[in-house]
Amino acid sequence: MRIPVAVLGATGAVGQRMVQMLACHPWFELVQVCASEASAGKPYGDAVHWLLSDPIPEKVASMQVTAPDVRSNAQIAFSALDSSVAREIERGWATSGVTVITNASSHRMDEKVPLIVPEVNPDHLDLVRGKEGMIIANPNCVVIGLALALKPLVDAFGVKCVNITTFQALSGAGYPGVPSLSICDNVIPYINGEEEKVEAEPLKIFSRLEGTRLVSPDLLISASCTRVPVLEGHMKSVSLSLHRKANFNEVKEAFCSFRSQLNLPSAPRQPLCFMHGQASPQPRLHCHLGQGMTVSVGTLRPCPVNDYKFFVLSHNTIRGAAGGSILLGELVVDKLFSKN
Amino acid sequence: MRIPVAVLGATGAVGQRMVQMLACHPWFELVQVCASEASAGKPYGDAVHWLLSDPIPEKVASMQVTAPDVRSNAQIAFSALDSSVAREIERGWATSGVTVITNASSHRMDEKVPLIVPEVNPDHLDLVRGKEGMIIANPNCVVIGLALALKPLVDAFGVKCVNITTFQALSGAGYPGVPSLSICDNVIPYINGEEEKVEAEPLKIFSRLEGTRLVSPDLLISASCTRVPVLEGHMKSVSLSLHRKANFNEVKEAFCSFRSQLNLPSAPRQPLCFMHGQASPQPRLHCHLGQGMTVSVGTLRPCPVNDYKFFVLSHNTIRGAAGGSILLGELVVDKLFSKN
Amino acid sequence: MRIPVAVLGATGAVGQRMVQMLACHPWFELVQVCASEASAGKPYGDAVHWLLSDPIPEKVASMQVTAPDVRSNAQIAFSALDSSVAREIERGWATSGVTVITNASSHRMDEKVPLIVPEVNPDHLDLVRGKEGMIIANPNCVVIGLALALKPLVDAFGVKCVNITTFQALSGAGYPGVPSLSICDNVIPYINGEEEKVEAEPLKIFSRLEGTRLVSPDLLISASCTRVPVLEGHMKSVSLSLHRKANFNEVKEAFCSFRSQLNLPSAPRQPLCFMHGQASPQPRLHCHLGQGMTVSVGTLRPCPVNDYKFFVLSHNTIRGAAGGSILLGELVVDKLFSKN
Amino acid sequence: MRIPVAVLGATGAVGQRMVQMLACHPWFELVQVCASEASAGKPYGDAVHWLLSDPIPEKVASMQVTAPDVRSNAQIAFSALDSSVAREIERGWATSGVTVITNASSHRMDEKVPLIVPEVNPDHLDLVRGKEGMIIANPNCVVIGLALALKPLVDAFGVKCVNITTFQALSGAGYPGVPSLSICDNVIPYINGEEEKVEAEPLKIFSRLEGTRLVSPDLLISASCTRVPVLEGHMKSVSLSLHRKANFNEVKEAFCSFRSQLNLPSAPRQPLCFMHGQASPQPRLHCHLGQGMTVSVGTLRPCPVNDYKFFVLSHNTIRGAAGGSILLGELVVDKLFSKN
Repeated sequence: MRIPVAVLGATGAVGQRMVQMLACHPWFELVQVCASEASAGKPYGDAVHWLLSDPIPEKVASMQVTAPDVRSNAQIAFSALDSSVAREIERGWATSGVTVITNASSHRMDEKVPLIVPEVNPDHLDLVRGKEGMIIANPNCVVIGLALALKPLVDAFGVKCVNITTFQALSGAGYPGVPSLSICDNVIPYINGEEEKVEAEPLKIFSRLEGTRLVSPDLLISASCTRVPVLEGHMKSVSLSLHRKANFNEVKEAFCSFRSQLNLPSAPRQPLCFMHGQASPQPRLHCHLGQGMTVSVGTLRPCPVNDYKFFVLSHNTIRGAAGGSILLGELVVDKLFSKN
Repeated sequence: MRIPVAVLGATGAVGQRMVQMLACHPWFELVQVCASEASAGKPYGDAVHWLLSDPIPEKVASMQVTAPDVRSNAQIAFSALDSSVAREIERGWATSGVTVITNASSHRMDEKVPLIVPEVNPDHLDLVRGKEGMIIANPNCVVIGLALALKPLVDAFGVKCVNITTFQALSGAGYPGVPSLSICDNVIPYINGEEEKVEAEPLKIFSRLEGTRLVSPDLLISASCTRVPVLEGHMKSVSLSLHRKANFNEVKEAFCSFRSQLNLPSAPRQPLCFMHGQASPQPRLHCHLGQGMTVSVGTLRPCPVNDYKFFVLSHNTIRGAAGGSILLGELVVDKLFSKN
Repeated sequence: MRIPVAVLGATGAVGQRMVQMLACHPWFELVQVCASEASAGKPYGDAVHWLLSDPIPEKVASMQVTAPDVRSNAQIAFSALDSSVAREIERGWATSGVTVITNASSHRMDEKVPLIVPEVNPDHLDLVRGKEGMIIANPNCVVIGLALALKPLVDAFGVKCVNITTFQALSGAGYPGVPSLSICDNVIPYINGEEEKVEAEPLKIFSRLEGTRLVSPDLLISASCTRVPVLEGHMKSVSLSLHRKANFNEVKEAFCSFRSQLNLPSAPRQPLCFMHGQASPQPRLHCHLGQGMTVSVGTLRPCPVNDYKFFVLSHNTIRGAAGGSILLGELVVDKLFSKN
Repeated sequence: MRIPVAVLGATGAVGQRMVQMLACHPWFELVQVCASEASAGKPYGDAVHWLLSDPIPEKVASMQVTAPDVRSNAQIAFSALDSSVAREIERGWATSGVTVITNASSHRMDEKVPLIVPEVNPDHLDLVRGKEGMIIANPNCVVIGLALALKPLVDAFGVKCVNITTFQALSGAGYPGVPSLSICDNVIPYINGEEEKVEAEPLKIFSRLEGTRLVSPDLLISASCTRVPVLEGHMKSVSLSLHRKANFNEVKEAFCSFRSQLNLPSAPRQPLCFMHGQASPQPRLHCHLGQGMTVSVGTLRPCPVNDYKFFVLSHNTIRGAAGGSILLGELVVDKLFSKN
């Protein structure tokens, strides 16, 4: 007996990835695909401008798209809605008793909404334990990769401050997204609202849960966000200072020994891959590791200004969006849904 | 009466730019083009794999390439030699009394070789005043843009530390350089020897000249260097701390009011352009400003970790290599050559 | 005393090129920039999303955009309107006595509208001689390059049939145009309505004017049109059969000896450049020849199926759109406007 | 009991694909990886500059590379050697009794060497039936896709002449291959020796076997070959005339009803996929169909000059090289190796 689920915003770039990953999921059964009023009533295969190189799952292609206010028997709604409309719609679904796992930014910083990377802060689910119709948020696509890369250092040494410059992929802007005339042979040093998210969300994720209150860590983040002509995979140049000094091998060992405690269908065996080779990681070569769920860290070296610097790569529409949301859904089922 | 000059390494990517810019220079007359033994004896037009969208200057196309150990009446040699061979060859030219302006890294950190960005530290020429057959070095292509962008802040407030992540263009690797299979749809987080240069050279450039000794400034630089799929224009994400605190408008005003003191043929009217628009500068749109000699600064904002952050863009083969070298040659003629 | 002119659709990709080229034109004075109602009233510099690497001409930046139904003292209107709205608006301008030079496809195949490449069929202007408020059309951007390349062969041997496959640049789709997610690392074998235009328009251009009637030539064209990830420059792979057999050197000589009869400000000295080198022409290297007004032909070789095959390159937004329209405007002034 | 096989030229771009596909093949066991003398003796993982996004198969990474003149117990040698050295080396292997399946062009047009696309002309294997130590050739990467697309039309109507323009991917040039400075934002209208192969090889493939003689078909091919900035997937714009006239639906039906007769491990269920959508096929979206072994045909329409035109896409390093060779090896085992 699989759990019936819906995808909100199912025709967008992230929604398509969700549909792809849910089409043959062991725990979830995709029973509803919602999109805008304009698409409602059409078969999904006609409504969507499919962007992935694997074909549309046949079963989903023939499903009729519904408007976002139609309710089915779905117990979980995975939301890939645009932030401009997500707030109201997601609130509506939650109010009617559905568990909403959202990839939109609208509710991420709400006090009552847990913001979770399953391998990093699964305990934050306690914020909503025992509730019905809750909203649980998947972080920003850059933040997920960053949080996973910081996690072993936070645990072992504490992280004091982080300077991060991002190289963000085109798929992160959705479809149609960035015009080719704007980005071919170019770099754009601005993504609307992105630096604010990258500087704020990790502080919530790394907060300590005291009762029902999140207590922020002693951590400062500065982000410079850019768009580069790469299809998939957000690269991050990271430089940071630690609370407790650590030598090179200790830092490397912290990365290498990090293991996931999760036993969930979408959890990669290795959530973090430390790459020993020079010039690693690289988006095109490494963003598909662990079916896109593994975050890569490489080119670790001492930093003359802070303590260490390195590069981090994560797949922005899988680990950073659709896959992250589904893994989060699995965590919710595992920890919060009664098992009987 | 123009000064006869030679180009060493004239068939490479930077050498071609030098040839292009010297072909109709008001002060210099290109009398010799040198390349490897393999090319010696051929007409330049046959020896070169021309990469620029303007055609080869006709006069130069028919010039016979010479081996690098052949001497002509050239008084200045502009060197675009590969570092692997530059050291010996440049020393040879200098020993025979020629002024060598080199773009290679071989001699840059030599105590007796001035390392100069004409608008930043022209006084360092005093290191070689009165000498014959000297070598004067043009800095690394990233460093030139960085030094120009830092100059107004160094002068007004002092700069304490700098975190820089680069987005470097393909032309910076010469020809054939980076294989397309390596860089299309990708970012490469490593450029051999680059971070060391970016961290070391600015310290020499911003040194104070005391007698014949350079005294290093109180300045720390950390560089993370990457190659991106962009043809021309090195982008830099910069975050820095100042010695004396300054508010946003003071920093902006320092950038905006910076003026060149140079009155030389290749000196841009505006060596630094502060861009007010969001998402500026961008390599494809802005690297040609001032015929490729103007460095752009934009997207200035406060930094939660350091004091301020912003982006810098400079044309890597013009301002960062060929154009920078020729401007430096003009400075040398203006300051050091007797005028009679 | 320059002739006052307006640009219709001045904020689009082609409109921007027109503005750039008219800003310092010896015969024309840009007195009006029209765009959609949404932009009307704003300074041009604020209304436009400027895409060119040269900055907006200062004088134009401060001009107030007008709606397209506002009339000024402009005697010529250069139209870069989208075809969806061009028909009505252009007709309105013509009716009020203005000469409309249009780059839109709406009127191109109208019997009474001359469709002209100035070096190919300037005599077709006789169709509108003596009229007031006429519309004269600039052909499709692929067709202009093709017609110029065919012209010497049509004149010398006659052309019987042409197979053409295009590699069209991103700027040809305007802005925002092609989404980067659609075209990066890709080729799209379809451009809406393009093959029909490429197959039909050359037949009108190469028609013989008999009185006021155009008589079609004995010529068949088959076009396969694609979009490729190139910013500027439409490439064309052409294979053709001639009416009169010709040997390789005769064909080559026909290309090489082609000269323009025009003495107009925007007419390139050399409208057609036959390239002798292997692997020529190439969009990035050669589309700027003759300030973007020269069409390149290269890699000529015998064709096992037809008679000959070769590649043609033309700059799509300059020769193929804005520059072509302005040159056409100059021809109109030269041939049709009374000179007193 | 799997058949022991070797890969010659195992470190190149095509050799890597062969290694990847043979690492877990049901019939073949990879027992030897050969490369140049420079690599001999090193573990494969150290000798190779790995280009694929899946990691090197662990078992192969630790295999010691041998020089190409070392013999093992391999019964089949898959050759991805460069044509400049393939002739001698392959002849050597064949002489010592090994069956050589070669992807190099050296022997393709030899009278005694079958040139085979398994779904197109498997009967040509009779040319070497009963021989020992034979060479069997995999066609050029463009030709394989073209031959598969032509096959249903040749069978149903006969094909008289073909005009083809190619859009060839970067991986087709091997590594380092095309410099990024040459191809970014560009199209190169020349690939050394390619047009000759595309015009000649299909004539051999579609020849009729009479006894031990191949009789050429009544077929003319003209090819125009270009390199485009696409990583994987050769696109082909094809226009052709048929011997027997056929209407649109007959042609479409011929494509749609084509089925493979092969029952081999690497044979795709569907060797040819007719795509009904507009703007299909596209390299990035469709070259991975059938694990890269399915060829796509789309955008079929009548041709004003010939009879029909359409686009063909095939994966150049899988179907067009490594996968094609391995499928050919399977065919050889199935048809020629004694089964006892």
